[in-house]
Amino acid sequence: MSDTTMEKIVSLCKRRGFIFQSSEIYGGLTGAWDYGPLGVELKNNIRDFWWKEMTQLHDNIVGLDASILMHPNVWVASGHVSNFTDPMVDCRQCKSRFRADQIDLTASCPVCGGKDTFTEPRNFNLMFETHMGSVKDDSSVVYLRPETAQGIYADFKNVVQSSRVKIPFGIAQVGKSFRNEITTKNFIFRSCEFEQMEMQYFCAPGEDEKWFDFWKGERMKFYSKMGIREKNLRWHQHGEDELAFYAKDAYDIEFNFPMGWQELEGVHNRTDYDLTQHQNHSKKDLTYLDQETKERYVPYVVETSAGLTRNVLMVLSDAYEEETLEGGDVRTVLHFHPAIAPVTVAVLPLVKKDGISEYAQELEKNLRETFATFYDQSGAIGRRYRRMDEIGTPFCITVDYDTLTDGTVTVRDRDSMEQVRIDAASIVDELNKRIRSYHRG
Amino acid sequence: MSDTTMEKIVSLCKRRGFIFQSSEIYGGLTGAWDYGPLGVELKNNIRDFWWKEMTQLHDNIVGLDASILMHPNVWVASGHVSNFTDPMVDCRQCKSRFRADQIDLTASCPVCGGKDTFTEPRNFNLMFETHMGSVKDDSSVVYLRPETAQGIYADFKNVVQSSRVKIPFGIAQVGKSFRNEITTKNFIFRSCEFEQMEMQYFCAPGEDEKWFDFWKGERMKFYSKMGIREKNLRWHQHGEDELAFYAKDAYDIEFNFPMGWQELEGVHNRTDYDLTQHQNHSKKDLTYLDQETKERYVPYVVETSAGLTRNVLMVLSDAYEEETLEGGDVRTVLHFHPAIAPVTVAVLPLVKKDGISEYAQELEKNLRETFATFYDQSGAIGRRYRRMDEIGTPFCITVDYDTLTDGTVTVRDRDSMEQVRIDAASIVDELNKRIRSYHRG
Repeated sequence: MSDTTMEKIVSLCKRRGFIFQSSEIYGGLTGAWDYGPLGVELKNNIRDFWWKEMTQLHDNIVGLDASILMHPNVWVASGHVSNFTDPMVDCRQCKSRFRADQIDLTASCPVCGGKDTFTEPRNFNLMFETHMGSVKDDSSVVYLRPETAQGIYADFKNVVQSSRVKIPFGIAQVGKSFRNEITTKNFIFRSCEFEQMEMQYFCAPGEDEKWFDFWKGERMKFYSKMGIREKNLRWHQHGEDELAFYAKDAYDIEFNFPMGWQELEGVHNRTDYDLTQHQNHSKKDLTYLDQETKERYVPYVVETSAGLTRNVLMVLSDAYEEETLEGGDVRTVLHFHPAIAPVTVAVLPLVKKDGISEYAQELEKNLRETFATFYDQSGAIGRRYRRMDEIGTPFCITVDYDTLTDGTVTVRDRDSMEQVRIDAASIVDELNKRIRSYHRG
Repeated sequence: MSDTTMEKIVSLCKRRGFIFQSSEIYGGLTGAWDYGPLGVELKNNIRDFWWKEMTQLHDNIVGLDASILMHPNVWVASGHVSNFTDPMVDCRQCKSRFRADQIDLTASCPVCGGKDTFTEPRNFNLMFETHMGSVKDDSSVVYLRPETAQGIYADFKNVVQSSRVKIPFGIAQVGKSFRNEITTKNFIFRSCEFEQMEMQYFCAPGEDEKWFDFWKGERMKFYSKMGIREKNLRWHQHGEDELAFYAKDAYDIEFNFPMGWQELEGVHNRTDYDLTQHQNHSKKDLTYLDQETKERYVPYVVETSAGLTRNVLMVLSDAYEEETLEGGDVRTVLHFHPAIAPVTVAVLPLVKKDGISEYAQELEKNLRETFATFYDQSGAIGRRYRRMDEIGTPFCITVDYDTLTDGTVTVRDRDSMEQVRIDAASIVDELNKRIRSYHRG
């Protein structure tokens, strides 16, 4: 019925334990977020869904987990030390600092009202800087990585030498990155600490356009498989003005977030730029020898770069609905795909007495090995269903008096609210079948 | 036969793609390590094994993923800003710096040979410091967290309010922590960037000793379940001189690493110290109201704190064997528990011709949905088995001429090297049965 606003999502996330502001009891830390009991399960499930899709189900993609702290020359080679900057201006009168592209430089200072008080714009590097070792000087500077991709390029040779991979092949990585964003906004959409799911696909020069098209297709299919509605996804091709100077082609998958269409994932043809840069700066041979053709070359790279934390916001936004029921009641429901829902199945005894809660508890315990379960016996059954709808639990199993006599339970479907009786012994098979065949109505 | 040395493990890890030095092409970054294709799967499997054990299989433990960057006052309250230090001395002559407890302060400088050239020891904080926002001064200092536990304490109230948990309950977290260790050593055992698996169990004062004993038992059982041999595990109780001033009791689980017995995990009774500190510093009420007894109190905390990256080193060390076979050949084998092995099953065609490799490829593809698979058709079958032994693959399925006529395949067991023929249609059930009943011989 009503629109999905960011306010509603933020409020639900805090109320039900999906996402909290970092260090909230100390007034919070801008640009950092904590994933609560439900949020961490949702995030892990999206991460695992991506990881399985990319590595386990593809025969020529291997995983990697490179460290967040890397040798500073990695970021010289990648161009981040010199180019990863935002232009900033200071007000000479009140000392406030602004991003030059976000204020009118010909107007008065928005803080103190000073006229002609802005300095010339100067470049401000977005990488977080720290010092490693006991001495704090220029020689000990290291950065928190602003992207995970460079770790993959730096380990390219080690992977080739240790893992018997043959081009074309990919290296996939999930991990945290950090950017000192001055203007964080839109909840977890743009934050200083975030998680990425990146895959770099190494191929022969000349084959890059074919693989670029292939990965565009694969990545869009992925979101359908995760249950995201097609109407909320679209392609955006980078124009000349957006394209990085080394990139041959670049498309973003955009999602229709509550604040509008925004980038969710990038599919980029990065050519041989990155490996060539690292080869030049490290003086190490990063070429690949094709054993069959005996050709030696620096591979081209097709990158698929998605935000894991943005994926969480997408999944929440796409799943959120305030639904008006027969009779006028409104329920809040999260239509998560069952494969990524934080809780897969709730077990609810209709009443607490006559051995019904004991039966339900035993049942819940037996389901734990296979599913993420939740047991709830407090309050009216209708209210318990609503609580499960609000956190996106796709299935509720209700135990009642009939269960004690004939061994059947009720399975209630979150989306349709339909209830059917099944044999308790067939719950695992029934739920697995429903998870595999899930389609949002 | 021969001893498991650190050199052998480091060498195998690099050769087969478990663990690489970070930024190796740039000369490496001390204290940071990258997990290669096999290492990341092993690390993820241990992480997931712990996470499932702690959250999914325990009805009163929920998960959390707090940010690495937190409000600086968190570390004032926790004591890390003032106490998380190593004493350091400088040589006034050559400017070298040393940890005061690691050199003889009455002797000559080990670098320049100067006599009486050391400064007085001064405290050096082990937290990495960076600046958030556009201004670099004292007001913008933030730290990379040196432990994950404080994120749990800072979110305690939010979890209680959002998640309907009742004391006793636990909050579990896996994540990276950072310490500016001057003396990193023993491969991934002590590094500047590492991963922890921590669980904080909140209980009523007076119940803490009971839960402390309970968790000691649970945590030791965990390692048996993961296949670690009992002879390599032992308890170490903290003596008066080791115990943190606020701790009531503390035991370490130690593992017999190649360099000797060292801490793997700590089980600590931290009393109400941490929550009280955060209550005092944040001025927020962090007490808990027991709905039944109407008592209000600051909960006691029993902590189980394990190193995930140390767990990786433990699993590698415990699994490593150079085994002399009949006839005198030596094979290197990693006896991973099948539940955490990076590759669960390899599919090997006996020969490449007559449709055998096509059959094997199809079989491997069908197994991917259920298991981490690997396909290998190059080289003699004996050599392929050895390669799988060396990376700890518990099962090899071999496809041969009989397969084409009767639909049976060979399952070869890594540990016993025994081969049995089974129906190809029963592979999934057979392997699942073996994984569940695995016991290292």
